[in-house]
Amino acid sequence: MKKVRIGLIGAGFMGRTHSNAYKSINNIFGDEVVPELVAVADVNADNAKALAEKYGFQRWTDDWKEIVKAEDIDMVDITTPNASHCPIAIEAANNGKHVYCEKPLAMTAQEAIHATKVVEDAGIVNSVGFNYVRNPIQQYVKELIASGELGTVVNFRGMYDQDYYNDPEQKHEWRMFKSASASGALGDLASHTLSLSQYLIGDISSVCGMTQIIVPERPDPADPSHMLPVENDDLVQFMYTYENGACGTIFSNRLAAGRKMSLGYEIQMTNGCIVYNQERQNEVQIYRHDDDKRERGFKTVLIAPGHGEYERFFGGAGICLGYADQKTIEVYHTLKCVADKTPCEIDFRFGMKVMQVIDAVLESAENHQWVSIK
Amino acid sequence: MKKVRIGLIGAGFMGRTHSNAYKSINNIFGDEVVPELVAVADVNADNAKALAEKYGFQRWTDDWKEIVKAEDIDMVDITTPNASHCPIAIEAANNGKHVYCEKPLAMTAQEAIHATKVVEDAGIVNSVGFNYVRNPIQQYVKELIASGELGTVVNFRGMYDQDYYNDPEQKHEWRMFKSASASGALGDLASHTLSLSQYLIGDISSVCGMTQIIVPERPDPADPSHMLPVENDDLVQFMYTYENGACGTIFSNRLAAGRKMSLGYEIQMTNGCIVYNQERQNEVQIYRHDDDKRERGFKTVLIAPGHGEYERFFGGAGICLGYADQKTIEVYHTLKCVADKTPCEIDFRFGMKVMQVIDAVLESAENHQWVSIK
Amino acid sequence: MKKVRIGLIGAGFMGRTHSNAYKSINNIFGDEVVPELVAVADVNADNAKALAEKYGFQRWTDDWKEIVKAEDIDMVDITTPNASHCPIAIEAANNGKHVYCEKPLAMTAQEAIHATKVVEDAGIVNSVGFNYVRNPIQQYVKELIASGELGTVVNFRGMYDQDYYNDPEQKHEWRMFKSASASGALGDLASHTLSLSQYLIGDISSVCGMTQIIVPERPDPADPSHMLPVENDDLVQFMYTYENGACGTIFSNRLAAGRKMSLGYEIQMTNGCIVYNQERQNEVQIYRHDDDKRERGFKTVLIAPGHGEYERFFGGAGICLGYADQKTIEVYHTLKCVADKTPCEIDFRFGMKVMQVIDAVLESAENHQWVSIK
Amino acid sequence: MKKVRIGLIGAGFMGRTHSNAYKSINNIFGDEVVPELVAVADVNADNAKALAEKYGFQRWTDDWKEIVKAEDIDMVDITTPNASHCPIAIEAANNGKHVYCEKPLAMTAQEAIHATKVVEDAGIVNSVGFNYVRNPIQQYVKELIASGELGTVVNFRGMYDQDYYNDPEQKHEWRMFKSASASGALGDLASHTLSLSQYLIGDISSVCGMTQIIVPERPDPADPSHMLPVENDDLVQFMYTYENGACGTIFSNRLAAGRKMSLGYEIQMTNGCIVYNQERQNEVQIYRHDDDKRERGFKTVLIAPGHGEYERFFGGAGICLGYADQKTIEVYHTLKCVADKTPCEIDFRFGMKVMQVIDAVLESAENHQWVSIK
Repeated sequence: MKKVRIGLIGAGFMGRTHSNAYKSINNIFGDEVVPELVAVADVNADNAKALAEKYGFQRWTDDWKEIVKAEDIDMVDITTPNASHCPIAIEAANNGKHVYCEKPLAMTAQEAIHATKVVEDAGIVNSVGFNYVRNPIQQYVKELIASGELGTVVNFRGMYDQDYYNDPEQKHEWRMFKSASASGALGDLASHTLSLSQYLIGDISSVCGMTQIIVPERPDPADPSHMLPVENDDLVQFMYTYENGACGTIFSNRLAAGRKMSLGYEIQMTNGCIVYNQERQNEVQIYRHDDDKRERGFKTVLIAPGHGEYERFFGGAGICLGYADQKTIEVYHTLKCVADKTPCEIDFRFGMKVMQVIDAVLESAENHQWVSIK
Repeated sequence: MKKVRIGLIGAGFMGRTHSNAYKSINNIFGDEVVPELVAVADVNADNAKALAEKYGFQRWTDDWKEIVKAEDIDMVDITTPNASHCPIAIEAANNGKHVYCEKPLAMTAQEAIHATKVVEDAGIVNSVGFNYVRNPIQQYVKELIASGELGTVVNFRGMYDQDYYNDPEQKHEWRMFKSASASGALGDLASHTLSLSQYLIGDISSVCGMTQIIVPERPDPADPSHMLPVENDDLVQFMYTYENGACGTIFSNRLAAGRKMSLGYEIQMTNGCIVYNQERQNEVQIYRHDDDKRERGFKTVLIAPGHGEYERFFGGAGICLGYADQKTIEVYHTLKCVADKTPCEIDFRFGMKVMQVIDAVLESAENHQWVSIK
Repeated sequence: MKKVRIGLIGAGFMGRTHSNAYKSINNIFGDEVVPELVAVADVNADNAKALAEKYGFQRWTDDWKEIVKAEDIDMVDITTPNASHCPIAIEAANNGKHVYCEKPLAMTAQEAIHATKVVEDAGIVNSVGFNYVRNPIQQYVKELIASGELGTVVNFRGMYDQDYYNDPEQKHEWRMFKSASASGALGDLASHTLSLSQYLIGDISSVCGMTQIIVPERPDPADPSHMLPVENDDLVQFMYTYENGACGTIFSNRLAAGRKMSLGYEIQMTNGCIVYNQERQNEVQIYRHDDDKRERGFKTVLIAPGHGEYERFFGGAGICLGYADQKTIEVYHTLKCVADKTPCEIDFRFGMKVMQVIDAVLESAENHQWVSIK
Repeated sequence: MKKVRIGLIGAGFMGRTHSNAYKSINNIFGDEVVPELVAVADVNADNAKALAEKYGFQRWTDDWKEIVKAEDIDMVDITTPNASHCPIAIEAANNGKHVYCEKPLAMTAQEAIHATKVVEDAGIVNSVGFNYVRNPIQQYVKELIASGELGTVVNFRGMYDQDYYNDPEQKHEWRMFKSASASGALGDLASHTLSLSQYLIGDISSVCGMTQIIVPERPDPADPSHMLPVENDDLVQFMYTYENGACGTIFSNRLAAGRKMSLGYEIQMTNGCIVYNQERQNEVQIYRHDDDKRERGFKTVLIAPGHGEYERFFGGAGICLGYADQKTIEVYHTLKCVADKTPCEIDFRFGMKVMQVIDAVLESAENHQWVSIK
């Protein structure tokens, strides 16, 4: 049994989600690796205290620097607003702490490149929280593609649509300002589609995209009679090429009426096809062109033993996992890498590449031309 | 090129549907067998004349006896109301005509048994119009079951639901009187489910059923302020056993809100499963338990070359056939059997067995007990 | 904040599942009611000890009688094999403990009736673990039916199919002996379908059913060259009537190739229809006949705020809950009733009625006739 | 009753398909307008003769010029290879004949613009054969969008994938040479998607696309040991903007393993969403954001009375139409416009705009930049 001593920074929604996962992993994964909840920090001291008491952290503070320097902490878990992800991660790495950082890794590709260099040079284990990649079905899909049984990838069509901003009367939020969030649907939603594309298929070499603002201004939450501008993309669509020669399209609309959790893809291959959507996270559609001609078709495969970590949860197929279970698997993988001092599959370099694509799409949309990713 | 000279009796909806099919078969099936539209009869002479002119029948009459006796007619096609099916068929057989009769074959099992004896003794080709059996997908399913690849049949769950009588304000119709139609949903709808069960799996040996009248009286069409009783089943459900040892359940509701054409089944087998519904008549779901454990699931197979007569229509998979195409296939099979003097797959004996099950279900529902089919 | 002191009896799979739920509820439901894990008992002392250490129970024992008598315990949680459910529950009630018992409540209807009388007379809070009823979608369906917006219920078609015993080479298990488990698929699977039917629609008044054994003998796990008989139903199907006049059919097959978690139903109503299947536990199909004629159809509704307790988990629609979340909701409801001393919705009386239907179906299948439930 | 005298040019697959439709329309649409099959021409005289005999054309010829000049012909129907569409249409128009031309209208946008000018100046009725637009469901969708009930269109995502060229061993065909067919999947498949986009939403103002050749050479059918180059797009994807400000993406892959007839779209609107796929041509998915929050979802609407011309076929919903029925509706609309001397909805101008988009996509793909459509 290995123990990992945790210092959590950020006591908001994601701080609680991570804490829940720390409480659950041993129920599912046994005692391979056990988190010890040492300390939690939040600029709002009350929030830090409340979370510490609720989940049993040994102490709390309003100063995150105490966490990154603490002798009794092995890993720093960063769930703060986006702008502070890299600064904290760098400080933690410089103090020799392993780092587990929520997505998006950074505000810009440049910042992500710098942070990646720092953590890699420091030789510490680093992990980024792209939780949808952790659905056991994605691990099966990755193995299936890699096996070559379906030939090679030809085309990826991905999306992440939601309708959480569909109502034009809905108030303005910080996410709609460029200063706080360079992109809109692109970084918030399509970044997850990119994480799946990158995890399953590989790196993107060039992009060509466009963005649209559907609702150009929204009521100021402080004074609803006053309108504030929406500065970033409500909708984004972009074509791209992979380094391996395949191509794809990704789109995302954060006002997409009817789409609640529509993160998905269709992967067209030379000898098969795979279709997935997060609204039905416990199944995947698989087509094999080698089947008998009279019986070719898309097969609805329910989550089953043999798909990633599913068997740790249940012995039989088709018993649904939920959103929270994906995060539990992510935390398990992260802690295990920290305990074993092995690299994480979804690390800073992975998150950096997602940021590079995002920045290239923004540049392409602004200049109306293809942009290469060096 | 063989010619079959047709005498059609009944110029209503089904008379037109058959006539359409006669006009279409050579477009699809070439000149293997060619119908010659000789004469049409209907008690309403105007209807007979109109249909004759529209489709090019050479003559028309208001006396069906002229048809069954005519020297220049090979096959009598019966699309009249149910009560006259057997009397006409018997008369036609006695005159040496081949007979093609709409479903249901008879009003009672007893009548069906008698008519079957007559046509078989006469040695003429006889066919009954269970058109849903003619979907090319059903021929593939039949072959698949017979192949043994999915093991043996364990359980059949079939239904035929529609909502055409859902509205309680809808007027009374002749179909709701026992004298005109012994059963309701059972004979009108579930008989088609039975035809699929019998075609695909085999004969039924015993049944236990119940019926319900959901709307007990409806407005008299002649005087809507006056109500007429609904005398037969709005809803029927019955369990049964097959002669081969398998068992099943069939249900039907003619007021089933939301079901438009929901004729379907799930066939559970020892090593697989097949699911079909007529609302998506161009696809079938197939499950093979022999697939790799990590990739088992129901496959949506679109209609394709290799499924029955589909290839006569289209060279590629997934091009939709419609309702009318099934009837065209039925007419083609019937005419070909007549031309070749070979037995029809869906003959009077087939229709007789469906009637025997229907009568047994009615008896079971009345007496609240299991009924054997001798 | 109210505290409920727990004594858990049974440290197997269900003991762990309940323990997990105790650890999770406060993350989801806040501090309304807080479980205190006092003691765990198991005939196997090592198992009791291991579970106690893993989840933080204060003490452990191999004698369940210690639990039911302990002064510092408010509620006894029973997760032992079926035969001991009622004896333990009665003893606990006689000691004034609240009782939370796994399903099935009893071995026979008679035993269930007796236990129900005892716990009701004792005036203690009692709860039975029919967890599938706790899917927030079921609460929405219940409200929708009760609202009358879809008219009245006409017909229920329910099923629970799995293929866990599909392989005839699979070893014999205790569940296949009548002495250990009176029924097979009926009690193990169809009981869940019955719980949904009863929760959503109401009580059953009469049944008529049949059972089949598909694989009559299986290898003895102790000596695979020796075969042991399968004594109870691999497959069951039964028709029934509700006290309110509606009717239904339920079927279950524990060898149903392709069905992994196929607990589901179609509820046909006079003015609508509802379709659900546990393999897609985060959605339900709803049809409203009042919609515009050109736009009627089944709507796929994803789990959403406004459905039962879903909003405690997530603020937006379509974020998947998993199997474990249903158990967390069940535990929350049970603890809250205990804390508030209010009756549970899913109580012993509820479980007793399920047992009465099960016994009636077995009797009907044996005697080939309809059986009334008094 | 109005009569239209037909001269058909081209006796191949499409010539037969049109002839079938001429034989069927009066069965479905009564005698509003009646085609008289006067003459058929084909460069292969035997083919012309055979088709004339099969369908009852009064005469046949191997010289299409006879057709366009004949006194007893009202409408010229062009089903020849693409390169001759415009030359024949222009000649027919110059002789005062109405023209009904198969798609694609022309080889290039320029040719299409010229032909459109000629037929419009001639004042004759002109029609182009985009048959998928004629599915009655598309007429309902068009009305639904126009009604404004779902708000305004935001984004269109369309595709047309097939796998007919999936096998790399499949022989080379004329369609793969640029000289014979400027584009590949784009003109052959995606043109249909464009026709739906244009019919339902409106004109496109700018495009940015890319193409790929997946199998760069294929066996020469004359000598399979010799390889011929594939010169045009196996795969195309392009983003675009509408004149009304909305945007979209269309993709097409003629080697898309698993896709048989996957012509479809998702139309995202400010207050709703519509999803369609030709593989299930008798249904459409509709989402209305105005529905009660607890019951929002995509509704599967089966084809029904009130959808375009469906009621001419069947009185009840959910009875499947097939591919052939769409062509029958197209022919009916065309003949009725000719008889009434009213403009066709799907006319040369419509076909010209599709060609303009196709040419713009090819230019964009070659130059890697956005291209405006003037």
